[in-house]
Amino acid sequence: MTLNRDVVSAGQRAREEDLVQRVLRSFDTCEDTRLGEIMRSLVTHLHAVVREVRLTEAEWNKAIEFLTAVGHITDGRRQEFILLSDVLGASTQTITVNDEAHGAATEATVLGPFFTEGSPRIDHGGDISNGAEGQPCWVEGTVRDTDGRPVPGARIEVWEADDDGFYDVQYGDGRTAARAHLFTGDDGGYRFWALTPTPYPIPHDGPVGQLLQAAGRSPVRAPHLHFMVTAPGARRLVTHIFVSGDEHLGADSVFGVKESLVKDFVRRPAGTPAPDGRLLERDWARVRFDIVLAREEAL
Amino acid sequence: MTLNRDVVSAGQRAREEDLVQRVLRSFDTCEDTRLGEIMRSLVTHLHAVVREVRLTEAEWNKAIEFLTAVGHITDGRRQEFILLSDVLGASTQTITVNDEAHGAATEATVLGPFFTEGSPRIDHGGDISNGAEGQPCWVEGTVRDTDGRPVPGARIEVWEADDDGFYDVQYGDGRTAARAHLFTGDDGGYRFWALTPTPYPIPHDGPVGQLLQAAGRSPVRAPHLHFMVTAPGARRLVTHIFVSGDEHLGADSVFGVKESLVKDFVRRPAGTPAPDGRLLERDWARVRFDIVLAREEAL
Ligand SMILES: [Fe+2]
Ligand SMILES: [Fe+2]
Repeated sequence: MTLNRDVVSAGQRAREEDLVQRVLRSFDTCEDTRLGEIMRSLVTHLHAVVREVRLTEAEWNKAIEFLTAVGHITDGRRQEFILLSDVLGASTQTITVNDEAHGAATEATVLGPFFTEGSPRIDHGGDISNGAEGQPCWVEGTVRDTDGRPVPGARIEVWEADDDGFYDVQYGDGRTAARAHLFTGDDGGYRFWALTPTPYPIPHDGPVGQLLQAAGRSPVRAPHLHFMVTAPGARRLVTHIFVSGDEHLGADSVFGVKESLVKDFVRRPAGTPAPDGRLLERDWARVRFDIVLAREEAL
Repeated sequence: MTLNRDVVSAGQRAREEDLVQRVLRSFDTCEDTRLGEIMRSLVTHLHAVVREVRLTEAEWNKAIEFLTAVGHITDGRRQEFILLSDVLGASTQTITVNDEAHGAATEATVLGPFFTEGSPRIDHGGDISNGAEGQPCWVEGTVRDTDGRPVPGARIEVWEADDDGFYDVQYGDGRTAARAHLFTGDDGGYRFWALTPTPYPIPHDGPVGQLLQAAGRSPVRAPHLHFMVTAPGARRLVTHIFVSGDEHLGADSVFGVKESLVKDFVRRPAGTPAPDGRLLERDWARVRFDIVLAREEAL
């Protein structure tokens, strides 16, 4: 077996390469040139994996069984294929590839499965927690365009897990908590109370969780607060901010961390006056996140 | 957009490459070295596809939807993931890779979804059709090992579609037809009546069929007769024979055709005496398929 993997004869290489070429040629008749381009790249690299690792038929069977299990656990509430793309870094790579043209703007990262439409609106200085437990955290910043001009009226959606690592939708009791939206003021500014983010695992009781376990990888995500920012004429920004110094930053299970998105969450002891004048009876934190929106692409 | 795809800045390349390296490093802790090897190859090539084609987020969404549909049509009776592997040539490539060490033996090809356990046994000269419609075809040959010695008592399973392009199991009425097994004689020889193979489409009413249609590809398989040959001490051979001169040979939808498996099916007019002395009232055919089995691998 070792020999097979290390030394492939010229004749064998030719047979394998001939097959790749035949599969590539089968897409010659594809009228959708973009589909053809994607399929040819996919075929080239799929065959490269099979050939490089000298995939056995038993391993091919396991791969089919794995994909079948991923398909069968996926339903309207759970998307295990997205989870698979996430833990292989393919979701983040897709976002990174598409961020290319927006160099001066705030970096994007994965949307994740927990965004929901119809969050409650809060005013400046309002609280998104709505009963979710956690350390209070003051979040503020300004939204600007790539020329540095403030963007008034930008819609900011924020959402996060509670201290137990769960999003509201995961409780299944219809609650709405730790999510809200607000609009920037005339100066592009915004401010609100949220919770200092804590680590949580992605759903890991399915085939993707088994894969992570077999690979000795943790399902935990680095603590983060989700943002989605929209404004007329601007490219929609989907991103997170992460907690500087957190131990999980280097091992985020979906590779969502980007250095520019790691922010200082400054801890304050109980009794220190908050930016809005409040006196909290427990420790709290504050963070600043200034946002730059790219111009909407001409289509 | 064209610019993005053609010219990727050095900084952008570095960001993308850094992400690939982070994902690869996440498998450093994998204790199963073979799993680690496979996952690193998969990650490398998956990211290469995303980067090469500059995959858009809309296309990523379509890919997730496609895989979800493949998962949802798959059940105990239908395996759309295998079909997907088949039409991308990945099934045949896996078989080709594993055939490497068996150069002197008969080439293998895909098993396909229509093999069933428990086929009826026939004697030499028996007929596998059991009511399936089609042109009678006399099939004969000898099974030998790679040293040229006849293999007596080898079990030969054969199965094929009928003239309408359907396997018995596709009728869903419990019939068993156009499938049987027999054993080679003391001289390694075998002979039986079957049907001259005709083209048939792979199941194409699901997402894989839609992909083929979008790509302008036909779902039709080149006509073939399936063989599975087993004998003590020999490697199991799963293969087909194909019909020389058939118009579909160059466009087999699962890339199963190998030149060494294309055989002359010699057509005979009605009334010509058959090899077993029978006088058929319709045209018939005959084909010879000599089989060489590889030695079972030491494990
Ligand atoms: Fe999250
Ligand atoms: Fe078949």
